[in-house]
Amino acid sequence: MKKVYVVGMGPGSQEQMTEKAREVFASCEVIAGYTVYVELLKEAYPGAEYITTPMRQEVERCRLAFESAAEGKTTAMVCSGDAGIYGMAGLMYEVGEEYPQVEIEVVPGVTAALGGAAVLGAPLGHDLCIISLSDLLTPWETIEKRLLSAAAADFVICLYNPASRKRKDYLKKACEILMNHKPADTVCGIVRNIARKGESFQILTLGELKDAEADMFSTVYIGNHETKVIRGRMVTPRGYQL
Amino acid sequence: MKKVYVVGMGPGSQEQMTEKAREVFASCEVIAGYTVYVELLKEAYPGAEYITTPMRQEVERCRLAFESAAEGKTTAMVCSGDAGIYGMAGLMYEVGEEYPQVEIEVVPGVTAALGGAAVLGAPLGHDLCIISLSDLLTPWETIEKRLLSAAAADFVICLYNPASRKRKDYLKKACEILMNHKPADTVCGIVRNIARKGESFQILTLGELKDAEADMFSTVYIGNHETKVIRGRMVTPRGYQL
Repeated sequence: MKKVYVVGMGPGSQEQMTEKAREVFASCEVIAGYTVYVELLKEAYPGAEYITTPMRQEVERCRLAFESAAEGKTTAMVCSGDAGIYGMAGLMYEVGEEYPQVEIEVVPGVTAALGGAAVLGAPLGHDLCIISLSDLLTPWETIEKRLLSAAAADFVICLYNPASRKRKDYLKKACEILMNHKPADTVCGIVRNIARKGESFQILTLGELKDAEADMFSTVYIGNHETKVIRGRMVTPRGYQL
Repeated sequence: MKKVYVVGMGPGSQEQMTEKAREVFASCEVIAGYTVYVELLKEAYPGAEYITTPMRQEVERCRLAFESAAEGKTTAMVCSGDAGIYGMAGLMYEVGEEYPQVEIEVVPGVTAALGGAAVLGAPLGHDLCIISLSDLLTPWETIEKRLLSAAAADFVICLYNPASRKRKDYLKKACEILMNHKPADTVCGIVRNIARKGESFQILTLGELKDAEADMFSTVYIGNHETKVIRGRMVTPRGYQL
């Protein structure tokens, strides 16, 4: 049967990719993806034909991948991080309703929340929420409600898309909402350029995070009431008795 | 400097492991872990010395890993899935306060939430919560509060440890709480034995999930109000206009 793969390539470097993802990329005749991610693959998989579309042309990108697969070419849609967490897997299923003859296989990968957590130490050691601050596809009221609920129930929170050129003050707004339920000295972290050139991290309080700089290559972590700093890292205990 | 790695091995099969994890296991003289996970590694890495402790002896397991590293042996602590999501990374930092001479490096992996999602389709396509139903280390009241908040704010929810021999009715209790805010026809999924022998999945409604069977090898997904079934799979749209 004709087949299209939706593959999570991990947060950046080849070494954070799963063996399965590497096998799929190596076996595919066509790799489709967002321009920036495709550039990361071209060197390692020079034999494939690449299809790219810029941001905001995700539906078109999916159609091109299905068209390629429908022509009988083994095709992969590449996603940064995981294939499903704010990735293309969902949209591929939606667009795939038009292509019942093409089978879809999703290949998971290390999402930014996990990759960045490993850099920070162990911030995600207990129940957690992942929330995107991007309001391109989600009303800001929904995002606000989720932030407030997550803070009230003392989840560890990981924020994707904390800021962009057009949304400079979103992280500040988010922190103000979280501070309704989380104290200003809650341990927080920012990781920039996870597993890529220029990777860096910062540990700070929620009060400091409110005025911190973040961009679209940052992932942000807000601890629960037990999160602490150990050996200069952000650690959320699971609750074991030492 | 002396070093101990905390490594997520992915949900089960070798092919879901990252290249970095494989390199670390191949380079380590000693691999410590829970008995069941270590058995999955022994065949692929026969040259290592293995240290195992059973469940409930996690602190001792961490001490043994640090003692091994402190003796100058390259040592890895293996975790199922990711190293940080209900894994050993946090406890390793806590125990590591006694071993300042040993550096800690965390290697992330594909956690069950992501591995199972790929099997189900694309259930985690929007903001999500991960909650463990195990009350061994967390008061049940805290778990209840988190379930209620997550449902009220329309998160997609992934449940770890949905049941065990001693906690047969926990999934039922959780579903009853979620049904305060999520309708009984909310699309849900269960994946069993992710990326292992006997892998299977089931898509059902929240009302059906309440009476479904789950065990400690199951991961459970509860959709948000937009989650739907496409081509027999569980899909949560991100919100793109088709």
